[in-house]
Amino acid sequence: MSLYDLSIPQFKKMIQGLERWLDMAQKFAEQKQFDPNVLMAARLAPNQWALARQITTACDTAKFTVARLTGKEAPRHADTETTLAEVRTRIHTVLAYLDSFTRDDFHGASERLISPPPLQGKQILGADYFHQMQLPNFYFHVTTAYAILRHNGLELGKNDFLGDLPVR
Amino acid sequence: MSLYDLSIPQFKKMIQGLERWLDMAQKFAEQKQFDPNVLMAARLAPNQWALARQITTACDTAKFTVARLTGKEAPRHADTETTLAEVRTRIHTVLAYLDSFTRDDFHGASERLISPPPLQGKQILGADYFHQMQLPNFYFHVTTAYAILRHNGLELGKNDFLGDLPVR
Repeated sequence: MSLYDLSIPQFKKMIQGLERWLDMAQKFAEQKQFDPNVLMAARLAPNQWALARQITTACDTAKFTVARLTGKEAPRHADTETTLAEVRTRIHTVLAYLDSFTRDDFHGASERLISPPPLQGKQILGADYFHQMQLPNFYFHVTTAYAILRHNGLELGKNDFLGDLPVR
Repeated sequence: MSLYDLSIPQFKKMIQGLERWLDMAQKFAEQKQFDPNVLMAARLAPNQWALARQITTACDTAKFTVARLTGKEAPRHADTETTLAEVRTRIHTVLAYLDSFTRDDFHGASERLISPPPLQGKQILGADYFHQMQLPNFYFHVTTAYAILRHNGLELGKNDFLGDLPVR
């Protein structure tokens, strides 16, 4: 399987899942009669990012992964989202961006040398960048978003996390 | 890259990371003068698994993934660990198990049809089982363990999560 197949459909599925959790969070807030944006500011530790930033960072991890693997310029986002509506818009933006890629864009991605800012000038091979750095990072932020919502009482389960599986 | 390369070294690295977090948790408990096993029982929601079970489930996810991809019998574990020492032993057990596999064991793994218990008799292709079900599951439990420790005041950072990267 190419890095296209391993990245684009799985990122999309997980981010679409994030948006379904937001739908559930919105209904939960209506039932309990609180402002759903309270959840967007919820965090698990005072020096850890709040939910809104966990979700926008998951979006950014997907965005930068496919941009750097294909040598394209990634669109910039200011990361100023604080409301559920703003986070939802950000999700739609990254889903449209992911849809703009083709399998051909990923030609040679595994062997491409990538120098993302956290590596401070050092380089990493595309395949290692994807499997050892970005995929763990992506699941880290998606799972932390899940954990913040669970901690605040939203009833999410493993199927909500995994999404549809190609079973036969 | 074969499913051997994508599973065994990455599972090992992440699980070795988990053990380092336990080292840090033990020191943290000594400094703050509390029983480190209190952390093993910590959870983020009353109906979510506690830290010990998150870690043993990460170990089990790795174990079942490689067993099912290669058609081998997975060793059974009772999941009765409640202390830091017991969780540590479980980590050593799964690391030794992961070390028992060779690249040849994974021949044909991507095309193998797998029927894990959660699918209730349905089947999934090995490659999909790995990328869409087990890898997300594995990172889910590792990240939830991280989140529980962070929520309880342990100062972990992203580098503790990712571990060493093959930069050049």
